[in-house]
Amino acid sequence: MRYILASASPRRKELLALTGIDFEIIPSSVEEKITKSAPRDVVMELASQKAWDVYGSLPPAGGEDITVIGADTIVAYNGEILGKPADKAEAYDMLSLLADRTHQVYTGVSIIKKKKGATLQNTFYEKTDVTFYPISRQALHVYVESGDPLDKAGAYGIQGPFAIHIKEIHGEYSNVVGLPIGRLYHELGI
Amino acid sequence: MRYILASASPRRKELLALTGIDFEIIPSSVEEKITKSAPRDVVMELASQKAWDVYGSLPPAGGEDITVIGADTIVAYNGEILGKPADKAEAYDMLSLLADRTHQVYTGVSIIKKKKGATLQNTFYEKTDVTFYPISRQALHVYVESGDPLDKAGAYGIQGPFAIHIKEIHGEYSNVVGLPIGRLYHELGI
Repeated sequence: MRYILASASPRRKELLALTGIDFEIIPSSVEEKITKSAPRDVVMELASQKAWDVYGSLPPAGGEDITVIGADTIVAYNGEILGKPADKAEAYDMLSLLADRTHQVYTGVSIIKKKKGATLQNTFYEKTDVTFYPISRQALHVYVESGDPLDKAGAYGIQGPFAIHIKEIHGEYSNVVGLPIGRLYHELGI
Repeated sequence: MRYILASASPRRKELLALTGIDFEIIPSSVEEKITKSAPRDVVMELASQKAWDVYGSLPPAGGEDITVIGADTIVAYNGEILGKPADKAEAYDMLSLLADRTHQVYTGVSIIKKKKGATLQNTFYEKTDVTFYPISRQALHVYVESGDPLDKAGAYGIQGPFAIHIKEIHGEYSNVVGLPIGRLYHELGI
């Protein structure tokens, strides 16, 4: 079986490596088209688009067995979706909204498997609740100016210096990092 | 303020570094004396012993302000305490017990602070619930034979390849790694 991760995220690469499987990375360059509104539906739709994009770009390969994995992560507060902040000002806004409150992180994962000529798709999502401590203006400034928020949904990375502001989570930790590796490992059936 | 971490654990060192404070490491070599039985009391007692051990070993230093941080982590299932496994056989037993179930990870932290000549102690604990997926005999074998369980309470490390067996947690993630860095950051008042 040839495994392909359809994501350029170094964090997803690290997480998938924990399974011990050998895999390649072919990032999707699909233009995301959102037709859904519920966070769980949005992440599954986008994960599926990424997986099909990469699957469809592969050259026809006879009898080769292939598994393509697509993923998408968003942060939601009160049902409102927060993506990656466009700039530092938006990062301040997002983190001020999330401070001292509980929000949800959704990661959708789509697995497209070609085996013995048949193509099967399995798409699912994981949700993790994340609760922040209150964050002082000074601490917020230090974090936003570090530049860490800019490539991250919800404007924070749980695995770096922002960890000091996390009070608790409920769900899978790796899901917040960007790939629910426990769930994915079990869905892959390896 | 001079900060001292009374632990040789590289994982605790990494977590404390997330706060951005400069600190030294002076591992405690105290012989642990457990007089309590409840997991939360045990980890606070041991954390306190470690902090006092290192604090007491420091040369008298005039008016220098000092903060010493001690920590101890255990795993508990049904109120029974699981420490570090003595060997691979015990690692198998512990992980077989924990598989497909929810257990608790307790970390006790003790902060001893000398400031303007006065000495204050603040000791607390954090609890995180951890739920494992079922684990196949083959997967258990792969993990135990890797040697990863041997220096870890409960015979697993949540931050490495064992992550594929974690279904969910409830509480602070860093607490399971060995130091509840969000709680500690707030207790330090920095």
